[in-house]
Amino acid sequence: MTGHPIRVAIAGATGRMGSTAVQAITAADGLAIAGLLVHRASDDVQAQLERFGQVYSDPQTLIDTEQPDVWLDLTTPSAVVQHVDLAIASNVRPVVGATGYSDADIVRWQATASKSSLGGLICPNFAIGALLMMRFAKEAAHWMERAEIIELHHAQKLDMPSGTSLRTRDAMGVDYDVPIHSVRLPGLVAHQEVIFGGVGETLTIRHDSLSRESFMPGVILACRKVIELNQVLYGLEHLLW
Amino acid sequence: MTGHPIRVAIAGATGRMGSTAVQAITAADGLAIAGLLVHRASDDVQAQLERFGQVYSDPQTLIDTEQPDVWLDLTTPSAVVQHVDLAIASNVRPVVGATGYSDADIVRWQATASKSSLGGLICPNFAIGALLMMRFAKEAAHWMERAEIIELHHAQKLDMPSGTSLRTRDAMGVDYDVPIHSVRLPGLVAHQEVIFGGVGETLTIRHDSLSRESFMPGVILACRKVIELNQVLYGLEHLLW
Amino acid sequence: MTGHPIRVAIAGATGRMGSTAVQAITAADGLAIAGLLVHRASDDVQAQLERFGQVYSDPQTLIDTEQPDVWLDLTTPSAVVQHVDLAIASNVRPVVGATGYSDADIVRWQATASKSSLGGLICPNFAIGALLMMRFAKEAAHWMERAEIIELHHAQKLDMPSGTSLRTRDAMGVDYDVPIHSVRLPGLVAHQEVIFGGVGETLTIRHDSLSRESFMPGVILACRKVIELNQVLYGLEHLLW
Amino acid sequence: MTGHPIRVAIAGATGRMGSTAVQAITAADGLAIAGLLVHRASDDVQAQLERFGQVYSDPQTLIDTEQPDVWLDLTTPSAVVQHVDLAIASNVRPVVGATGYSDADIVRWQATASKSSLGGLICPNFAIGALLMMRFAKEAAHWMERAEIIELHHAQKLDMPSGTSLRTRDAMGVDYDVPIHSVRLPGLVAHQEVIFGGVGETLTIRHDSLSRESFMPGVILACRKVIELNQVLYGLEHLLW
Repeated sequence: MTGHPIRVAIAGATGRMGSTAVQAITAADGLAIAGLLVHRASDDVQAQLERFGQVYSDPQTLIDTEQPDVWLDLTTPSAVVQHVDLAIASNVRPVVGATGYSDADIVRWQATASKSSLGGLICPNFAIGALLMMRFAKEAAHWMERAEIIELHHAQKLDMPSGTSLRTRDAMGVDYDVPIHSVRLPGLVAHQEVIFGGVGETLTIRHDSLSRESFMPGVILACRKVIELNQVLYGLEHLLW
Repeated sequence: MTGHPIRVAIAGATGRMGSTAVQAITAADGLAIAGLLVHRASDDVQAQLERFGQVYSDPQTLIDTEQPDVWLDLTTPSAVVQHVDLAIASNVRPVVGATGYSDADIVRWQATASKSSLGGLICPNFAIGALLMMRFAKEAAHWMERAEIIELHHAQKLDMPSGTSLRTRDAMGVDYDVPIHSVRLPGLVAHQEVIFGGVGETLTIRHDSLSRESFMPGVILACRKVIELNQVLYGLEHLLW
Repeated sequence: MTGHPIRVAIAGATGRMGSTAVQAITAADGLAIAGLLVHRASDDVQAQLERFGQVYSDPQTLIDTEQPDVWLDLTTPSAVVQHVDLAIASNVRPVVGATGYSDADIVRWQATASKSSLGGLICPNFAIGALLMMRFAKEAAHWMERAEIIELHHAQKLDMPSGTSLRTRDAMGVDYDVPIHSVRLPGLVAHQEVIFGGVGETLTIRHDSLSRESFMPGVILACRKVIELNQVLYGLEHLLW
Repeated sequence: MTGHPIRVAIAGATGRMGSTAVQAITAADGLAIAGLLVHRASDDVQAQLERFGQVYSDPQTLIDTEQPDVWLDLTTPSAVVQHVDLAIASNVRPVVGATGYSDADIVRWQATASKSSLGGLICPNFAIGALLMMRFAKEAAHWMERAEIIELHHAQKLDMPSGTSLRTRDAMGVDYDVPIHSVRLPGLVAHQEVIFGGVGETLTIRHDSLSRESFMPGVILACRKVIELNQVLYGLEHLLW
C-alpha cells in the first residue's frame, strides 16, 4: 500500500477489545496508531502501551496534538457519546465499537457530520461471520415458514436477550413472532443459532465467536474504509455488500 | 426362541404408535398378538387390522376371550386408567405407553399388582436413546457446574416444556435452577439437548427421534421382560441398567 | 386461481417421491393430474392410483392421449433420459426430479427445446432449505477463510459423497480444497452442514431434511412456473432468486 | 485445608499449558509450587516466572534441591520420558500431561514405581468434560447400533485423527468400524462429537473445549489425589468414577 498510512486514535486502549485492537492495528498494512486514550492505567500497563503509541488521558488533547484521521472508540457506555461528539466536532472520522449510545445520538452524529461530509461508521458488531448470519437470516425469512433464535453466552453476560439476537430479529422483518431463547453457561463464549422450519425440513444458521480476534478483520476494514465515506453509516455491512 | 410365544393384547391399535406396534410385535421373535382393542374404526381400517389379530371394542371381552399375557396400552389419557385397572384385576401384565395417569394411579397399580406379584411396566419413554440421554445427564450433573435444556419439537406439539425435558431435569437432581427452552417449529420432529457448562468447556448430550420406529425396540423389550417381573416398575431403564 | 389448471403427467408414480407427489399435486391449487406413468404395479397399487388419475404404462400413449402441459419425471436413471427426450419431442414441458442423466443429455434437451421455445426445469434438489444452504455457502465462501462440509445420511445411502455436497462445493467456487466428510448411520435421514472458519469465529449453515414432504413445495412451484419459461433451466433456484 | 501443602514441581512452565498451570496451582488450596523447570527462557519470561517459584533448568537439581511431592510434567515428547524416569527414580510422584511416551514407557514406569509403592498418574486428557464424553460413548456403544466420530480442531493442529478421538474409539470397544472424521479450520479450538445411530433415532455426545483453563480442574485434582495412590495409573478417570 502506497501513500501515508491512515492514523488511528484508539480510545479504550486498556480494555479487552482495545488491547487486542492496539496490536491488530499496529500490524495492519496501511494503518498506524496516532495515539491511545486511556482513562486510568497502572504504571505497568502505561509502560506497555507506550511501546505502541503516545498515551493520553484527555480526548481533546489527543486530537489537538495528533490530528488523527480516525477515532476508534472501544470505550464504555459512559464515555462513548462525549468522545464521538468531540471527534466529529474536530473533523475526525469516528469508528464506534462501544455501545450505550441512543438513537438520538446516532441522528445527531449523522446530522453534524453531514455538514462537513465527514465519514463515520457505527458498528454494533465487527465480526464478519455474525454479519453474514444476520444477512442470511434475513434472506431465509422470506422463504421459510417460521423461525426461532437461540443465543448462548458465557455466564458473566447478564443482559438477555443479546443485542445481536435482537438485531437479527429486527433484520428478519417478519410479521410472526420469533422467540429468542437465552442460554447462559460457564464454558460458553458467544454463539447464536437461527433455526428456520418449513415443511419436512429445517435450516439452521449458527455463528460461534470464540475470541476477540474475530472482531479484528472488521475493525481493520472499518478503519480503512471510513476514509472513503462522506456520511455516518450504521452497520459494518454497508462496507461489505 | 423356544416355548410358547408371549401373547400381547394391544390397546389403541389404530393410533400412530399403535399401528406401528402392531407391525413390530407381529414381526418380533417370541411375541404374538393376542387381540387388538379398537375404540372406533372404519370398515377399511377394521379389515386391515384383522389381518394381524382379532379385533375387539370392549377390553373385558378381549381379556376374557383371549387370556393375553401382556396388556400393551397405547391409548389416550381418557382410556388408559380404566384399561390398566382392568388388566391388573384380571391378572394381565400391563405395559403402559399411554400418558395421562396420575401419581395416585401408579401407586394403586403397584399396590394391587403386588398382591399377586404381578409384573408390570410404566414407560413414559420407550426410546433407548432418550433413556441414555437422561442417564448421562444425571451423571454429568455431578461433575459439571451448570446446565440448561433445549427441547425442540414439531409445531403441532402445543404442550411445553415436554415431558421428557421435565423428567430429565428431575433425574439430574441438582440444587441449582436448570432452565428449559422450548422450540416449536414445522420441520422438527422430537429433539432434546442438555448443555453442561464448566470452566472453559461444555458438554452436550443430544437426542433426535425421527420416527415412531425409534420406540419399537423398547416396546418389544418391555413386552418380553415384563413376564419376568413380579412388581410394577416405572421406567424402561429398570430393564436396561 | 382462475383459468384452466395446469395438467401434469407424473412418471414414477409408485415410487417414494412419486406417490408423495401424486397427493401433493392433487391437492395443489391450479394443478391437476393429467395421467400417471407406472412401469409395473400390483393390482392393489394400480387400483389405488386410479383414484388419482388415469394410469399408463407407455409414455407415448400417455402423451398422445392426455396431452399434458407438464411432464414431471420422478423415475430412475434407466428411464428418465428416454422419457424427457420423448416429452420434449412432443412439446410437453419437462420437470425433471430423477437423476442419472449426463451433461450431454442436458445440452441436448436445451438445444431441442430451444427450437420451439419450450420451457423446462431440471431440479437435482427440490428442497428450498437445501437451495438456501447452497446459496448461503456460496456467499459465505467470499468472506470466510476456509470451509469443510459434513453430510450425514441414513445407512442405506451407499453413494458418498452425496450429490448435494458435491453441488454445494461446486457452487462455492473457491480455489482451496473443501473436504467433504460423509457420515452414514441408521436413524439419520438427510442432513448437511457447511462449516466456515475465520479468525476467532466459525459460521455454520445446516440443512435437515426429515421427509419427502420437504420436496413438495419445490415440486409444485416448478410445475406452476415451468409454464412461463421459454428455455430449459438447470436448478430450481432460477425460479427463486 | 490443614497440614502442609502438597509441593508441586512444574516442568514445561513456559509452555501454553504450563503457564496456565503455574497460575492455577498457585491459586489452588492445599497446593504450592516447589520449583519450575524451564528449558530455555528470555530474561523477561524468567523474571516473570520467578514471581511464582524458583526456576531451574536441570531436572535433577530441581528434585535434589526442592524435594517436591509431585512432578507435573507438561513438556514435550522429546523431554517427558527422561523426566518421568528421573522423578520415579527419585521417589517423586509423576503427573504426566505431556504426550509422546510409548506403551513400553508406561509399563516401565509402573514396574519401577511399584517397587516403592509410589503413586503416579498419566493423563492424556485433563478435561473432565472430555472424560465424561468418553465414558458416555463407551456406555452408549452397548445399546446403539452404530457410531461415527467427528473431531474438529483449529487449523494449526496438523496431526489427525486426534488422540482423544482414537482413545474414544478404543474405549467404545465395539467390533464394528467407527469412522473418524477430522475437521481442521481456523476459528475452531478443540471439539469432538460422537454420533450414535439406532432405529429411528440418534444420540450425540459433544465436547467443546474452548481454553486451556478447561484442563485446570483436572490438573489440580490429579496433583491432590496422586498423593493417595500407591501405583501409577493411566487416565484421570480412575480418580473420578
